[in-house]
Amino acid sequence: MGQGVSHEELQLAARNHGMPLEALRFDVTPVGLHYLLTHYDIPEVDAGSWRLEVDGLVEQSLSLSLDDLRARPSVETAVTLECAGNGRALLDPHVVSQPWLLEAVGTARWQGVPLASILEEAGVRDGAAEVLFTGLDRGVEGGEEQSYARSLSLEEALRGEVLLAYAVNGSDLPPQHGFPLRLVVPGWYGMTSVKWLARVTVLDTPFDGYQMQQAYRLRHEEGDEGEPLSRMQVRSLMVPPGIPEFLSRSRVVEAGACVVRGRAWSGEAEVTQVELSTDGGATWADAALEDVSLGTWAWRGWSCSWRATAGEHELCCRASDAAGNVQPLEPVWNVGGYANNAVQRVPVTVTA
Amino acid sequence: MGQGVSHEELQLAARNHGMPLEALRFDVTPVGLHYLLTHYDIPEVDAGSWRLEVDGLVEQSLSLSLDDLRARPSVETAVTLECAGNGRALLDPHVVSQPWLLEAVGTARWQGVPLASILEEAGVRDGAAEVLFTGLDRGVEGGEEQSYARSLSLEEALRGEVLLAYAVNGSDLPPQHGFPLRLVVPGWYGMTSVKWLARVTVLDTPFDGYQMQQAYRLRHEEGDEGEPLSRMQVRSLMVPPGIPEFLSRSRVVEAGACVVRGRAWSGEAEVTQVELSTDGGATWADAALEDVSLGTWAWRGWSCSWRATAGEHELCCRASDAAGNVQPLEPVWNVGGYANNAVQRVPVTVTA
Repeated sequence: MGQGVSHEELQLAARNHGMPLEALRFDVTPVGLHYLLTHYDIPEVDAGSWRLEVDGLVEQSLSLSLDDLRARPSVETAVTLECAGNGRALLDPHVVSQPWLLEAVGTARWQGVPLASILEEAGVRDGAAEVLFTGLDRGVEGGEEQSYARSLSLEEALRGEVLLAYAVNGSDLPPQHGFPLRLVVPGWYGMTSVKWLARVTVLDTPFDGYQMQQAYRLRHEEGDEGEPLSRMQVRSLMVPPGIPEFLSRSRVVEAGACVVRGRAWSGEAEVTQVELSTDGGATWADAALEDVSLGTWAWRGWSCSWRATAGEHELCCRASDAAGNVQPLEPVWNVGGYANNAVQRVPVTVTA
Repeated sequence: MGQGVSHEELQLAARNHGMPLEALRFDVTPVGLHYLLTHYDIPEVDAGSWRLEVDGLVEQSLSLSLDDLRARPSVETAVTLECAGNGRALLDPHVVSQPWLLEAVGTARWQGVPLASILEEAGVRDGAAEVLFTGLDRGVEGGEEQSYARSLSLEEALRGEVLLAYAVNGSDLPPQHGFPLRLVVPGWYGMTSVKWLARVTVLDTPFDGYQMQQAYRLRHEEGDEGEPLSRMQVRSLMVPPGIPEFLSRSRVVEAGACVVRGRAWSGEAEVTQVELSTDGGATWADAALEDVSLGTWAWRGWSCSWRATAGEHELCCRASDAAGNVQPLEPVWNVGGYANNAVQRVPVTVTA
């Protein structure tokens, strides 16, 4: 963290925004507070002429208008989305890319048509291996001009929770969240939930585009082939207690009874435990987990009482999931700066 | 720009967000794309128990609920708001604070009650000098625990366009824009449009709080008393043409006819001219100004044709207003890094 962030990274940080952590108090993140990463530019889309093309290895190609999609049976699901690069700026050595600290997360109610129902309507043919999702956003990455595109295995694409979403929190998608239609893949890091979706293509071989083969892979050394990123690692975050100093964001808390609150999630399995430490991770207390009110795919609230005594403290929170995953105390560095789910550390000054 | 941005500044950049410049294509900025600077934390407000207190040098103190305010005659005004620190990160030597590049702007339709009508209802007494606006957001700045608070002269406060706004773009204010009520002062930099407004106090002497005497002053040297910031300096911005490279944000444009579009505004007077340069400011062409469709207090659209030829170009735009103000070609440094309205420069690679 001693190293500065470059002008190029600052350009990304000024465009893309995290969710201020006090917004963890909302079950469902208001639009405008949800994190947002736009790889290229937000494209201009004419909803009237826009179509979703469904093609490739299907019995019957489809070309669907927004009204066509809205006329189909829909579901609404609360989904926590987190950027795979969340926590990148806390890695040392520094990794150059979108410099997320911890705020690249949010939970929204996404409404749309299950992807499986559209694939069923088109009729997936024998030999299908993957489904490719192509957005309308175009840019240059790795020296290559491209539309943003990601694929899923056929098995993942057919999971019932995967949505083609045209509404968020009860309104049409705003431009920055993929108007008129985006993919939402619950449980996965956000890179897979392709925005400004234009085309769904069934493939007989794995897609080898930039966002699959170059970006979004966990590599321990430069040059490794690496493993593709998929589901969100278990993580908890707290609302930083007390009030902030403007510039340093350091926290000041009054001595006495204090309830520390936050949210926890995992793309792998249900969150089963959250612990709070008020001494930098030396000792831990169990937090109370709230009921799973938002369903399987959204974060879970937690709270923990703390009797704050005058002096300096470091608060940390740590979540575990039913698959046995536990947040590490220290970051695990990797080439792309992905999936850093180390425990959050919040220094706090308690005043008498 | 050679100097890196610190971890503390990055914390601010991750929380606060600019308007991605491609969103200049919207007359009215969608919520979530409008720039946002939160000095402290977004406070939690219970709309049911919330009241606006109007007190100080008045005939009759008022305590108004949100319903009380909604029941009064309202107006809706399109207003361009820009942060006084917009352009700070382009200054050299580096100024440490929220590291805005150029995106700290947006235009919204704010609906609410004219402040003048509320002050009239309360009855401003003789000897009144200023009106103080206190928000519910609390933090530490300059070593001092404080609620965010700013004042206006009585004359400015009584201007007809100053609003107590409870809605934006047709909906209730979202939490991050000041729910349930904020001040909106058209023409002024954003620091004066106090969010989460709790109290309006008529004073007989100028308010000397931190946000008036320490922050938001134009100082050419450390230790200067400085001049208070008020109205937005004239500025134009363009939608960066073509497509971006992900990390560098450098632009690639196809050779041929290209229309460069943008917006221009000034808090001092009507925008009268916008010029475009495609050679780094050596020569300039007049852009076409769109009609003033959004009214006096909002930005004005402009466009300019450009025949893009293969090679490297630097596009610049420059606005002038009816008061004779013209954007400077180079930034004017000052201690707080405020009001840097130097022309925008967009390097572009045109491919054949």
